[in-house]
Amino acid sequence: MSRPAPLALTLGDPRGVGPEIVVKAWQALRETGPDFVVVGDADCLRSAFLGGDEPTVETVQDPGEASSLFRHVLPVLDTPDERQLLPGAAADTRAASIVRWIAQAADLALQGKASGVVTAPIAKAPLYEAGFAFPGHTEFLAELTADAPHVGPRGPVMMLTARDLRTVLVTIHTPLVQVPAAVSVKNVMHTARVTAAALKRDFGVEHPRLALAGLNPHAGESGTIGREEIEVLAPAVALLRGEGIDISDPRPADTLFHEAARQTFDAVVCLYHDQALIPVKTLDFWGGVNVTLGLPIVRTSPDHGAGFDIAGQGIARADSLIHAIRLAAELAERRARAS
Amino acid sequence: MSRPAPLALTLGDPRGVGPEIVVKAWQALRETGPDFVVVGDADCLRSAFLGGDEPTVETVQDPGEASSLFRHVLPVLDTPDERQLLPGAAADTRAASIVRWIAQAADLALQGKASGVVTAPIAKAPLYEAGFAFPGHTEFLAELTADAPHVGPRGPVMMLTARDLRTVLVTIHTPLVQVPAAVSVKNVMHTARVTAAALKRDFGVEHPRLALAGLNPHAGESGTIGREEIEVLAPAVALLRGEGIDISDPRPADTLFHEAARQTFDAVVCLYHDQALIPVKTLDFWGGVNVTLGLPIVRTSPDHGAGFDIAGQGIARADSLIHAIRLAAELAERRARAS
Repeated sequence: MSRPAPLALTLGDPRGVGPEIVVKAWQALRETGPDFVVVGDADCLRSAFLGGDEPTVETVQDPGEASSLFRHVLPVLDTPDERQLLPGAAADTRAASIVRWIAQAADLALQGKASGVVTAPIAKAPLYEAGFAFPGHTEFLAELTADAPHVGPRGPVMMLTARDLRTVLVTIHTPLVQVPAAVSVKNVMHTARVTAAALKRDFGVEHPRLALAGLNPHAGESGTIGREEIEVLAPAVALLRGEGIDISDPRPADTLFHEAARQTFDAVVCLYHDQALIPVKTLDFWGGVNVTLGLPIVRTSPDHGAGFDIAGQGIARADSLIHAIRLAAELAERRARAS
Repeated sequence: MSRPAPLALTLGDPRGVGPEIVVKAWQALRETGPDFVVVGDADCLRSAFLGGDEPTVETVQDPGEASSLFRHVLPVLDTPDERQLLPGAAADTRAASIVRWIAQAADLALQGKASGVVTAPIAKAPLYEAGFAFPGHTEFLAELTADAPHVGPRGPVMMLTARDLRTVLVTIHTPLVQVPAAVSVKNVMHTARVTAAALKRDFGVEHPRLALAGLNPHAGESGTIGREEIEVLAPAVALLRGEGIDISDPRPADTLFHEAARQTFDAVVCLYHDQALIPVKTLDFWGGVNVTLGLPIVRTSPDHGAGFDIAGQGIARADSLIHAIRLAAELAERRARAS
């Protein structure tokens, strides 16, 4: 087998912690791999050095050049930040560059020039102001890869991982008031199907066991505190079991995440953002990884934001990004072996 | 100072794990205290012995007799389970006894014959079917003590504690679809005021620091994922600070519960059940305690349910009940010292 292509790592919002943690991740991984090539602005990376081994940032024309260089220099496919605006944008913003880097990385993965995509954090508000029409990375990458062939049910489904916990989300960046209506039989089934398939294909779990979190306190306690468990979740469970998917009845969400519970399933299907994120970040604040399931390409990212408040101080931790890079390489290798 | 009155411990639902964990708590605490007297059915307790030191269950007429006996026997104010129905009840149920035991314990605490109330778990559905008109223990105890004098803002506010985390709830047993409307400036302020006062009076925290959880993903991310943070939570924070209460801006709920974050506040004001319960039970599934703040009496309980599925097998763990008993004694002592 030939040496695998490197991962494509987008720089994220250059005003946030992205450049700093990218440099730190290279410092941590240069000797061992996995190799990556940065998709972003070389000057911005050069100015992000704040300690440790000073990286020589070297521009490459093709990701294929990156692996042999990686131990010595930080390779970057340089697409300078031109402050070019998206159509309809109202303000000076780096949004266009941020978006272009993501599209470029996805394209490299689709061409097989990158083995997967890892994305450093962006902030959504400035992108929205600049006309970006997707809720976040996840949905944008789904759109970018929509025409590529995909094995199994197509996502995107967002998964978060901590050390011994995986959660997946039926709704993601949905205001809480809209969550109950968005939790439909169809959406729950879609999330569970994509998750079960990805656990098999990408994570090597032969017989995935899913737990399903309830929406209401005590999972509705027999319908006395909300009826979504009876009217939506139980029917979805029955249909999924009919398809051969191993999924629990809707269970009280607060009982699913302690140590003993975590040994009894391979992922928890959660219904909204904080239900999935609170346990992951409570258990493993620095090391959590965001994985997009059901895409034609492998994609992971750190599970934290752009950190504008701490950027440029040298204090941002690269743990989550490093875990994201390692997990992307692992998933890419499993897909490569199977194909 | 005279010996403090014992705690009054209600038996909870006799078909659940209550009797078993009450016996186990007595086995664990008989040598060291805190002392308690059970309010419940003596026969039911006798039949709950499943291992360890076999308790001699002894009926007392007055809680004052309990402390001298506690080391040798398990004292109970015997109010046999008569299977008497509440008005309008449709089915044979022990609901009337369960409710009577709670009322009796509250009464003992109001009279000073018990230093506080600890309640073993009940299930809500059978009580509702029998005509019980309160969402749970917490609201029922508030009603039972509504006419008694109280120092500071009156609750009830539900607090959950894990080892180094305390969360309080603006809404409790509210279906998720009703949560956004129930999170009002008034309700948030009420919860924060009661919590700040209770942290000072009952927990001995001189300058309580409160964190406020956001309702939406990323605390709304500048209003792009929900506007409750801007329209409801921020105004509540401003008013609370005007009253001298130290409370944070609404913060992304998933960033509040990891180890480093937990050192920066004394309690997190959470907006709904699972937001408060998931972190507590993820961190400390067996040892969490439920405390009712802002009542004229001290009241704690284990943070788990009646456990019908495991009752009578000898496998129920009493950790949470034991922690609840210890915490109730600690809070009662602090109130007694101050008065």
